[in-house]
Amino acid sequence: MQQRTAEILCVGTELLMGGTVNTNATEIAKELAGLGINLYHSSVVGDNSERLAEAVKLALSRADILITTGGLGPTYDDLTKETVAACFGKKLVLHPECLEEIKAYFARAHRTMTPTNEKQAWLPEGCTVLPNPNGTAPGCVIEAGDKLVAILPGPPREMRAMLKNGLVPLLTQKGQRLVSHELHFYGIGESELEYRLHDLMVQSQNPTIAPYAGTGEVKLRVTARVAEEEDAEALLRPVMEQILAAAGEYCYGVDVPDLQTAAVKLLREKGLTAATAESCTGGLVASRLTEVPGASAVFGCGIVSYNNQVKTDILGVDPAVIREYTAVSAETAAAMAEAVRRKAGAEIGIGVTGNAGPAASEGQPVGLVFVAVASERYSHVSRMFIDRQDEDARGLIRHLAALKALSLLRKAAEKY
Amino acid sequence: MQQRTAEILCVGTELLMGGTVNTNATEIAKELAGLGINLYHSSVVGDNSERLAEAVKLALSRADILITTGGLGPTYDDLTKETVAACFGKKLVLHPECLEEIKAYFARAHRTMTPTNEKQAWLPEGCTVLPNPNGTAPGCVIEAGDKLVAILPGPPREMRAMLKNGLVPLLTQKGQRLVSHELHFYGIGESELEYRLHDLMVQSQNPTIAPYAGTGEVKLRVTARVAEEEDAEALLRPVMEQILAAAGEYCYGVDVPDLQTAAVKLLREKGLTAATAESCTGGLVASRLTEVPGASAVFGCGIVSYNNQVKTDILGVDPAVIREYTAVSAETAAAMAEAVRRKAGAEIGIGVTGNAGPAASEGQPVGLVFVAVASERYSHVSRMFIDRQDEDARGLIRHLAALKALSLLRKAAEKY
Repeated sequence: MQQRTAEILCVGTELLMGGTVNTNATEIAKELAGLGINLYHSSVVGDNSERLAEAVKLALSRADILITTGGLGPTYDDLTKETVAACFGKKLVLHPECLEEIKAYFARAHRTMTPTNEKQAWLPEGCTVLPNPNGTAPGCVIEAGDKLVAILPGPPREMRAMLKNGLVPLLTQKGQRLVSHELHFYGIGESELEYRLHDLMVQSQNPTIAPYAGTGEVKLRVTARVAEEEDAEALLRPVMEQILAAAGEYCYGVDVPDLQTAAVKLLREKGLTAATAESCTGGLVASRLTEVPGASAVFGCGIVSYNNQVKTDILGVDPAVIREYTAVSAETAAAMAEAVRRKAGAEIGIGVTGNAGPAASEGQPVGLVFVAVASERYSHVSRMFIDRQDEDARGLIRHLAALKALSLLRKAAEKY
Repeated sequence: MQQRTAEILCVGTELLMGGTVNTNATEIAKELAGLGINLYHSSVVGDNSERLAEAVKLALSRADILITTGGLGPTYDDLTKETVAACFGKKLVLHPECLEEIKAYFARAHRTMTPTNEKQAWLPEGCTVLPNPNGTAPGCVIEAGDKLVAILPGPPREMRAMLKNGLVPLLTQKGQRLVSHELHFYGIGESELEYRLHDLMVQSQNPTIAPYAGTGEVKLRVTARVAEEEDAEALLRPVMEQILAAAGEYCYGVDVPDLQTAAVKLLREKGLTAATAESCTGGLVASRLTEVPGASAVFGCGIVSYNNQVKTDILGVDPAVIREYTAVSAETAAAMAEAVRRKAGAEIGIGVTGNAGPAASEGQPVGLVFVAVASERYSHVSRMFIDRQDEDARGLIRHLAALKALSLLRKAAEKY
């Protein structure tokens, strides 16, 4: 089985100015991993013809496949096609069918085509065109000798569709596969998880075990490299069982994208509904839940009670609770969860109240949050104190509070 | 004035597996731009000692400053310090003060220090230590000849604090500055904006004008490179005036981070309050508003009415409106905006209803959204049809609907 190596080269001065996060490289890397193609280098260069040409040559000296993104726009500083074509001694020619596509795109979007967009229909001679249903710049693939260069656009929506529908089918190789499962953990730190799994992680070569620390979460990816006809699951199963034996109580799901999906899935399976009452998270918990397709089956009502009057008059919390314990208290969080549960007629209510900053309020410090869950089977209030001096402490406090709420929601659903 | 060149090298197999987005490179790039240090290359390599050493050598052959991230963890595959030190013929030595810091960190976090964490206190001999208040891995700076290598940790929170508080002060150079302003646009596409500004963008060398297309938004960064004593604003002002003359009606702010901040700022300035009623965005508009520090002065109440019963019983929309026009209609959006405005006693109400997918519902196609604003001075309903076949069409529809809501909110505040 032939081992191919790819390299990613993202082109764009904006990526070197700090204005744009390079999500393209991440998405391409993920697809390459799925294809079983090795990726050892991923680079960024600006909109500079000379440095771009150097980077292309370096990449082709060490990889079989080069994937570029960016520099296909209509403007004068978009140079990728020209530069890559020149590296292969090819010139650009007008592709009339691409020009028609571009015209059709503008017509569909009810926008006026500017003359500069015509440039986007010029592609290297002899290339395979990759259509762009989401934008005006077609991509292309140049094959020369044993090298392949794929030229993709920079805007992530356009790049993504072209990658999945155009390039991946071209790169799919018979013979081998990488098969992965992802185990998602909440409530345990990366160090602690690695400490528990150290021997297994060092010894296991196939499958490999790789930890990814998120903010407030940890993910383990277990990946088996197998020949087409081999049973990857038979390799993966015993390793996953060992991981779950060591830390299963923190695992909220396998191959689920996130905690909200795990929560919605479990609610659906059990035929339960949930409602949210949020103060410091300001709608973030509801927003996360409704990110999940099909959330409407389990979630109908969220109330953002960002001040005390809304907590009492609209949500229905007893004013005496807030008076006695303050708005940022376990008692108020519990009352919010119970109030919204009753108001919405849901099985499970979530209440979040806290101080996300920027200043202390009613004597409660920044970072103090109470997250409550209320149901007939399980009620609980978690106190969190997120004492961080980060620039975006507010975002972090909201994020961690929302994770806790989603985790408690999932836990409550488990009790049914 | 000496022109320095830097290079970024991010180390971590997770970055090449597609599991992690490389936000570190973006943040370092932004700081380098602010320091007036050129950045021509940014690369990623995996946790492989040989390729890491090659990448370090290549970077030092073309840049004065190398900044690495990642590979400082406690585990066996964290190799950055060892590899960089070897490139300079240096060995690692135990820094007892770092070991104390690590112990103190674990004590503060009420966590148990694992034996593997001791490795993190070993740093290249003769280096300058960069403390890590947010984690266990200290960073360091090695200077040799006219080269400088800064070794930063991989977790973004840790990297960010060390970059800003430790490394940037070390790299700040007397003599020159880059000064930028960012102009934010909503409601105009990147092509159209560039078409309007083409001559200005091509001709203007200092300041430079760089466009950044976001999803549903466009940003222009105007950057002047000046000597310390020069007046950057005098260079920037006339160019910004020309930009605003060409497309000012779409500009929602200068040097504001986003549309929600612009909206909250304007509401605060005018002493207005807003309330939100959301169906398909499910709390996203409220969540965006409350991301902004100080939002509580202008926002108290959000209701997520994800089903019709909540729209009528809790929000107070007339059931006849929904019966006659369906839940996804201009009339229902307007009724939601007006209902939440009255319920919350706010000057401006926002209503969002639509179908974010995954399936058509009540005969309304996926992607059809109505966004309404209601106030005594300005009421309006926008119809959007976001007909995209993306994998994450749902996320895109919600995002674009939320942007529209924030834009209408800002526009309504302008009328006061």
